[in-house]
Amino acid sequence: MRFFSDNAAPVHPAVLRALADADRLDTAYDGDRWSKALDARFAALFETESLRVLWVPSGTAANCLALAALCPPHGAVLCHRDSHIQNDECGAPEFFTHGAKLLLAEGAGAKLTPESAAAVLDLQRYDVHQQRPHALSITNATEYGRVYAPAEVAALGSLAAARGLGFHMDGARFANAVVSTGASPADLTWRAGVDALSFGFVKNGGMNAEALVFFRPELAEETLFRRKRAGHLLSKGRYLAAQLLAMLDGDLWRDCARASNAGAALLAEAAGERLVHPVEANEVFLRVTPAEAARLRSLGFDFYDWGPGEARLVISWDQRAEDIRPLAEAIAAL
Amino acid sequence: MRFFSDNAAPVHPAVLRALADADRLDTAYDGDRWSKALDARFAALFETESLRVLWVPSGTAANCLALAALCPPHGAVLCHRDSHIQNDECGAPEFFTHGAKLLLAEGAGAKLTPESAAAVLDLQRYDVHQQRPHALSITNATEYGRVYAPAEVAALGSLAAARGLGFHMDGARFANAVVSTGASPADLTWRAGVDALSFGFVKNGGMNAEALVFFRPELAEETLFRRKRAGHLLSKGRYLAAQLLAMLDGDLWRDCARASNAGAALLAEAAGERLVHPVEANEVFLRVTPAEAARLRSLGFDFYDWGPGEARLVISWDQRAEDIRPLAEAIAAL
Amino acid sequence: MRFFSDNAAPVHPAVLRALADADRLDTAYDGDRWSKALDARFAALFETESLRVLWVPSGTAANCLALAALCPPHGAVLCHRDSHIQNDECGAPEFFTHGAKLLLAEGAGAKLTPESAAAVLDLQRYDVHQQRPHALSITNATEYGRVYAPAEVAALGSLAAARGLGFHMDGARFANAVVSTGASPADLTWRAGVDALSFGFVKNGGMNAEALVFFRPELAEETLFRRKRAGHLLSKGRYLAAQLLAMLDGDLWRDCARASNAGAALLAEAAGERLVHPVEANEVFLRVTPAEAARLRSLGFDFYDWGPGEARLVISWDQRAEDIRPLAEAIAAL
Amino acid sequence: MRFFSDNAAPVHPAVLRALADADRLDTAYDGDRWSKALDARFAALFETESLRVLWVPSGTAANCLALAALCPPHGAVLCHRDSHIQNDECGAPEFFTHGAKLLLAEGAGAKLTPESAAAVLDLQRYDVHQQRPHALSITNATEYGRVYAPAEVAALGSLAAARGLGFHMDGARFANAVVSTGASPADLTWRAGVDALSFGFVKNGGMNAEALVFFRPELAEETLFRRKRAGHLLSKGRYLAAQLLAMLDGDLWRDCARASNAGAALLAEAAGERLVHPVEANEVFLRVTPAEAARLRSLGFDFYDWGPGEARLVISWDQRAEDIRPLAEAIAAL
Repeated sequence: MRFFSDNAAPVHPAVLRALADADRLDTAYDGDRWSKALDARFAALFETESLRVLWVPSGTAANCLALAALCPPHGAVLCHRDSHIQNDECGAPEFFTHGAKLLLAEGAGAKLTPESAAAVLDLQRYDVHQQRPHALSITNATEYGRVYAPAEVAALGSLAAARGLGFHMDGARFANAVVSTGASPADLTWRAGVDALSFGFVKNGGMNAEALVFFRPELAEETLFRRKRAGHLLSKGRYLAAQLLAMLDGDLWRDCARASNAGAALLAEAAGERLVHPVEANEVFLRVTPAEAARLRSLGFDFYDWGPGEARLVISWDQRAEDIRPLAEAIAAL
Repeated sequence: MRFFSDNAAPVHPAVLRALADADRLDTAYDGDRWSKALDARFAALFETESLRVLWVPSGTAANCLALAALCPPHGAVLCHRDSHIQNDECGAPEFFTHGAKLLLAEGAGAKLTPESAAAVLDLQRYDVHQQRPHALSITNATEYGRVYAPAEVAALGSLAAARGLGFHMDGARFANAVVSTGASPADLTWRAGVDALSFGFVKNGGMNAEALVFFRPELAEETLFRRKRAGHLLSKGRYLAAQLLAMLDGDLWRDCARASNAGAALLAEAAGERLVHPVEANEVFLRVTPAEAARLRSLGFDFYDWGPGEARLVISWDQRAEDIRPLAEAIAAL
Repeated sequence: MRFFSDNAAPVHPAVLRALADADRLDTAYDGDRWSKALDARFAALFETESLRVLWVPSGTAANCLALAALCPPHGAVLCHRDSHIQNDECGAPEFFTHGAKLLLAEGAGAKLTPESAAAVLDLQRYDVHQQRPHALSITNATEYGRVYAPAEVAALGSLAAARGLGFHMDGARFANAVVSTGASPADLTWRAGVDALSFGFVKNGGMNAEALVFFRPELAEETLFRRKRAGHLLSKGRYLAAQLLAMLDGDLWRDCARASNAGAALLAEAAGERLVHPVEANEVFLRVTPAEAARLRSLGFDFYDWGPGEARLVISWDQRAEDIRPLAEAIAAL
Repeated sequence: MRFFSDNAAPVHPAVLRALADADRLDTAYDGDRWSKALDARFAALFETESLRVLWVPSGTAANCLALAALCPPHGAVLCHRDSHIQNDECGAPEFFTHGAKLLLAEGAGAKLTPESAAAVLDLQRYDVHQQRPHALSITNATEYGRVYAPAEVAALGSLAAARGLGFHMDGARFANAVVSTGASPADLTWRAGVDALSFGFVKNGGMNAEALVFFRPELAEETLFRRKRAGHLLSKGRYLAAQLLAMLDGDLWRDCARASNAGAALLAEAAGERLVHPVEANEVFLRVTPAEAARLRSLGFDFYDWGPGEARLVISWDQRAEDIRPLAEAIAAL
């Protein structure tokens, strides 16, 4: 049984069915009926008409198109030292923004706070010799499976507004954050000041479609050009749009996230003192000795080591409680 | 009945089945069994071990990653004035290469010749005040549905070698060119000096997977980083690899191209003197008056106007002779 | 006697004196009294307070910072096929703009007309598949020594305004154009719709200082960052500012241009039917056979061949009539 | 009396004289006799024929052209957290390299050690999800006026070689480091593994010419194009080359650095326990209360505050002992 990545999981059957349903003639690129339905569907979910949605085939594309919309080449983006955009995208933010600088702030569990963010902002000189901060980017849920509650996002949104920064949320696991906090998607984003959201579906049962949601619709205009220019305007876009619509149908995205969060909670309970971070989404970070890690692997559980003496376990949408319980028991028995 | 784009066509059922078959757990990105199978499968097709294949979700990404591998920011790429990379990718070549310049050459039917290419190359000064040509890029089949035979490619390959240029082929409709010329994929590419091929599948029955084939494997090394950095290393890559494998299975890609080429031939025969270009692949360019175009549309046929007095008709893999015959008859009856 | 480039000429003594006069302690970069005096001095010359001036050490930097201020990476700049930004800056426009495309228009003597510019603009599709035109750039005096009169600039300015394009003038030889047309600097620029002017001094007696003049002052704000980021905010900027001030003092820039224009007129008179272009500034293009060119060189005159059967002769600020007359006579005697 | 920046100092009279001496006709750009003399002159100084020198008008240009030669867009450059390229160039490294990432290491006095550098390198994952380190960049003398001795440079050079990294030295104050260590320029650079040196002259008496020295001559080839493309190939380059030659003549560059180092030593002696860093070059960092800083300023001494409770004093080539002694006494008397 594998717990190494929610990217490794299969695609939800409803998504596969949606692909088959979309397998009809329509116009190319994003002129088809599925693509055109996105704005209205997301507007309903987010309780606002002030919204534009673009499909893209990867979270990296969503993140970096958002950053390019918010930050010029001579600007800077404030993010957490352990964020995905800093550590796991091979400089895609620098590529899409044409060389903006990532300014790195601290915070437990890869969460920024207004204080940790302000500390970095206050060190900048705001003269032409430095790249001026133009945007703030946070991840919800974070790389360590922590979530920001609406009030926490709003506190950062206030800081962003006060400092004149655009505000981006990397929501590769946004679904897990919504389910975890019980907040509405609106409260967790635009009502808290978020300008652009990378709303992830691939880790949550999708195949290769993510939603880039702009709450300032004017930001979408230039991004349409940037998306094309980056090779992300796929010619048969309806197969991406259909995936997103399928995930929204009947709140499938919530069901999937609920399942993976629940699986993580099961492990968290068993792990007790071994937990490196509180478990709030679908990731569990454990303190384990090499011998303990080997023991778990010998029992057939796959996962990544995460630095010395730690292991990362990620639960996917398709793992049921009965699949996970044996691991929980094995951890408890260590 | 629509004839406006092969991008509008549905996906081949075998591709959909392949997606369902791939719908199992495996590692993320391109570490899975499907992705790992690509090199060997394409090596067999191209009769060479000197080859590396990367999947990407769009032809623009394939083209521009290839160009970036062949040309530095301060270099230039020679291509046809009517090429896709010049006119239809919103500057993606400039984005991926960080500002290389496209040098534009002439040629009937959007085909370059050694003479037309040399004419442009000879005008360059080769001093530091100009971007030095580093690559040659041709499209086979071209934007106007013309094909290059192996000897024609080889003549350009010789020019490229003599001038120290890398050689890229945009093969968004490579399948149509292979079927049209009857040449082997090898004869049409690396044996004729091609270094990198964008091998298109989406216009030919695929969903969102194209193959970037390097015949100089060392070019793939840097490109792996560039692909990631451009957001094109999708996290569930096996769903792209599976599409490519399905298209290769039993030479499905040839069958699809054979079908669309045959449909175009049917129209060509009916069009006679109206043809703007010889029909060699799956595109037909007709001289029609506005009234004639309106007449065809009133009969239910969709297509694009292509400049004043011309229309473009594109046949897709799924259009059968009986679907096309009514249009052929309507054209003949104009 | 050399006639190959006005870049080869020495520096005017007044400029050298100004450097010595500026050789005192002051603040670094552009905070010094000389740099701070520029706006007012150029405002007086251009009869407008709506102006910001930045020194830069090269015309390429001036041109490309202007283009970057007017055109985003996914945009296009319309210019003449024979312009310096297209042919002689090794892709600097693409570098500074992060990949904007130059669209090339025709026109005798390297001059654009509203018609030739509109012809190119009208071919663009204005969809996301093409880089949308954002700016128009002309050169005054042109590469072939032709000048635009105020009405000609204004006609292009109207086109730019109607099409929503920023308007840049490459004025590497702006002084020659001003003197040639007898127009005021204002009439030749902002009153005719020009947004940004590269005002050249180096070819006209300066050492290494050019003025980038923005008539829309807000464009200067971002450019200050771009200038720094491109390494063009020199640390002892006062030695650049002092050059510009020296050239403005007593209208020295006009005197220098008047001298070089007059020299060219002398040659033009002698050349008669040999002239390839009317001589309106300080450049003379002659039809000469190889034997005739060799004859002139054997008499000690240096110049560049300019394609087959043509020669380019450039007059510099420091060449007096008595220096030039022997060449005029030699040409007349061919 | 001002002590705020060596950029504020005047130009050495010998440099001004050299400009006047160079004020003769020659070819444009870098084809003139002065520019052509550089390689041989620097080769003699550095005791190696394996060398190419390019003039540029700013240290930022020198640094960033060097980095672009050593690191691709998808690579990373390891440097000190307090380095000039990270904090004071507005992202010029990212601009010139097209988005390479700066990896930040620690070290007292802004000096890297093999250990602090390796610590950062060891944290990188060396997969396609991260920008792979391609270069190491150090500053000698550092931002805090510390110097690297040859053995220290060589230890970092060994690390660079072992890790496959290019090695760049930002020598904006290289002259001060040479004089301070007593080492030969060769021992401090290529014999210690340095591939590219930004050899600064502007802070040491020059006007606007710096030398970019490549000890791997092949790196210069592409850089010639990059220099042009960045607007740094000035058209009257001889006025830059002449400055460099003047500074090399009779070892003027050493004399200037010796003078400014000596001035700093004078202050250091007076400062005693107040020193934040050992004084090894021409910069002095003092612990002073706001009241003490105010006191010094009231006596007519200008300098920058450098964070809370600290002041930075920089000595220029033209400040004589008798100019500096009053400040030394004032500091001692605090």
